[in-house]
Amino acid sequence: MPTNASTQAGSAEPRSVPNRETTDRMRQAEPVLIDVLPAIDAVPGMTPNTILTSGAPLPWEQYHGGQRRAVLSAAVFEGLAVDVDEADRRIRDGSIQVGFTHAHGCVGSVAGIYTASMPVFVVEDQTHRTRGFCNFYEGESRRRLNYGVYDDEVRQGLLFLQERIAPVIQEAVRRYGGVPLKPLIAKALRMGDELHSRNTAATTLFMRELTPSLLDMAVDGQSGTVREALAFFYASDYSFLRLSMAAAKATADAAHGVTGSSVVTAMTISCREFAIRVSGLGDAWFRGPLPTADCKLFEGYTEEDIEWIGGESHITETVGLGGFAQAAAFGLQAYQGGSAQAMIDMNQSMYQITAAEHDDYRIPYFGFRGSPLGIDIHQVVDTGILPVIDGGLAGRNGGQIGAGVLRAPLDCFIAAREAYDAAYPGGS
Amino acid sequence: MPTNASTQAGSAEPRSVPNRETTDRMRQAEPVLIDVLPAIDAVPGMTPNTILTSGAPLPWEQYHGGQRRAVLSAAVFEGLAVDVDEADRRIRDGSIQVGFTHAHGCVGSVAGIYTASMPVFVVEDQTHRTRGFCNFYEGESRRRLNYGVYDDEVRQGLLFLQERIAPVIQEAVRRYGGVPLKPLIAKALRMGDELHSRNTAATTLFMRELTPSLLDMAVDGQSGTVREALAFFYASDYSFLRLSMAAAKATADAAHGVTGSSVVTAMTISCREFAIRVSGLGDAWFRGPLPTADCKLFEGYTEEDIEWIGGESHITETVGLGGFAQAAAFGLQAYQGGSAQAMIDMNQSMYQITAAEHDDYRIPYFGFRGSPLGIDIHQVVDTGILPVIDGGLAGRNGGQIGAGVLRAPLDCFIAAREAYDAAYPGGS
Repeated sequence: MPTNASTQAGSAEPRSVPNRETTDRMRQAEPVLIDVLPAIDAVPGMTPNTILTSGAPLPWEQYHGGQRRAVLSAAVFEGLAVDVDEADRRIRDGSIQVGFTHAHGCVGSVAGIYTASMPVFVVEDQTHRTRGFCNFYEGESRRRLNYGVYDDEVRQGLLFLQERIAPVIQEAVRRYGGVPLKPLIAKALRMGDELHSRNTAATTLFMRELTPSLLDMAVDGQSGTVREALAFFYASDYSFLRLSMAAAKATADAAHGVTGSSVVTAMTISCREFAIRVSGLGDAWFRGPLPTADCKLFEGYTEEDIEWIGGESHITETVGLGGFAQAAAFGLQAYQGGSAQAMIDMNQSMYQITAAEHDDYRIPYFGFRGSPLGIDIHQVVDTGILPVIDGGLAGRNGGQIGAGVLRAPLDCFIAAREAYDAAYPGGS
Repeated sequence: MPTNASTQAGSAEPRSVPNRETTDRMRQAEPVLIDVLPAIDAVPGMTPNTILTSGAPLPWEQYHGGQRRAVLSAAVFEGLAVDVDEADRRIRDGSIQVGFTHAHGCVGSVAGIYTASMPVFVVEDQTHRTRGFCNFYEGESRRRLNYGVYDDEVRQGLLFLQERIAPVIQEAVRRYGGVPLKPLIAKALRMGDELHSRNTAATTLFMRELTPSLLDMAVDGQSGTVREALAFFYASDYSFLRLSMAAAKATADAAHGVTGSSVVTAMTISCREFAIRVSGLGDAWFRGPLPTADCKLFEGYTEEDIEWIGGESHITETVGLGGFAQAAAFGLQAYQGGSAQAMIDMNQSMYQITAAEHDDYRIPYFGFRGSPLGIDIHQVVDTGILPVIDGGLAGRNGGQIGAGVLRAPLDCFIAAREAYDAAYPGGS
């Protein structure tokens, strides 16, 4: 069993072949945005009474704070309950089901709420035919359902998304015939994005792709709604994150289920814990405490105000983006603090815990070296180097209160390694 | 007189006050694209028989190679001569005038050809009311008039620009009411551009600004030409360079003419020489040999193939962009060679020869430090550090054959320093 920090793919360990297979699948994935649909029409296993939320499965009683508020409010938004008390009763009696995003091909931003009527981006990996889904960014307000806030303004925002924005993007995507996302992501990495906490270039590149279709639609009499959709997407440099997440989910799921593989295919946060899933270890989640955060808070907030209410946007880190491509996005300093050198060092250290490098996702600062790809649980445990995650931070009373660099907890990797050693004796 | 490398603005030299005034004007400039017009309708001193070309003034006999071919071909394109021989005769007899771009508020890319009918971007610095002009990028073909090539394809390309592209952009800009360029430039610096050899983000941001106007025009029955203009601008990540140049020219001209200032307000290249102009030294050009180049050539070419045929796009370096912001654009390595570390070192060294830092043009890698602004001839002579210029390279038989990093020759700065000492005894 290797115990030094230099373990890399290509070495002679038995796991190197399946790990190569896993990362090859990630590299070869070709995520394409093929449609925009209500969750009920696209997401496998979705029902009118289902609410999906971030995190590894938990009993309902264990949800608290913002994530609990978000799930209850989602039931009210969807018309499944008149108020949060009724929603709570209906969840307890089983007439509303709380599901887990990852089990449905979805990934959640923060609390990550999905209801049947919410529009989702449908991204298909054209190589392996896996699909990933993500709902829409709610917009620039710090008060959003996925940050645990619900009031009439939040409700109107969600309705605006599904009634006005989603239909325009749906038609534009259909006219376009499917938007390949990998080329946009690869180009955005050369334009200062890391595709998790910075999506400025990708958002612009995506709308630029759709512009000819939007132009046609405007000429065909839809200029009002087209203008609205353009304004909405361009109002936030963050809009593309949901596409980056769906693309990463389709990619990671394509790499899941390789016998003998010790590569991580999902990382998730709930209000209680951090958890990871490993390609060769089935559907088990390996749990640990909540992450640590080195953060920059919006004015008026302190670390005391941070509340963990879930999050799965670090599916991007799982496929070599986000914190694993920080050195592509020095502009992030303004948003999440830190220094260029710290970003370089963190990014560089990720090569020590990954099994491969991405051919298409390249980092200009590193002389176009491919980004570190495929977190190997053994390398994490052996080196003690924890995956770096760029992330937004939620506040105790709801809403976003800052951003920063999170570190996944070692416990998850130790637990996964024990399971791996049990499943594959002598295999590591 | 200071002789050490640490000379900076704010020190007690007599020139520090006028140099501060010069760089303040550069910093405070607010370049706005106000119109697109044929050169004859916009450029001061332009006549139907005038051809403008890059470089400090030279007698006609001294033009040779690609720059000479470009001027003669421009006369044919404009209908001033039936062929290059007639054009040559008419230039010699004075019925066609060869003018110098900088004297007319223009800046040329490579040979930098302007004729009366060619459309130009009209950029006005709203703070000081100076105007800068630049003509349009000819497109992705390596065969372009400004690289000394002229044939029917080049001619058709120029006519397409003036008949089809320019009118659309003109109307979009007028509908928009003038496009402020400084915010686009500042944002592009956070998106991997340095606004000379890399304009990928700026091109996209610029077209994004115009998209609502273009949408209106499409709805108003111009969807064909609107689509054409979008496709043309988006076909090249280079399109914005001409706007960056016009903005820089308006900015640098606003800073010209400050008594006692030793800050460079223009750098230019002809087929014969490099030359600079200094804010406090009137209209004199201080000349030196052609620059040295550290370059990456397209496949099939060697350094033997390089020919100097002019160039003034390094007006961008004059105002703190291009080579002075290289560390914002690590993606440039793919185009012009070098390494990230070399780019950082070059960019860093420019602080030693500049009088100030730009408040609005900031470099993420340097922790958002303002870019080095205002080349001081004294600091260049004292340190021996030569201004770094990102640039395209022309080939002996016409067309672009590569790109690289140029260095301005020391001779220009020594000549300017001698003139400065003569003009301002004891002033340096």
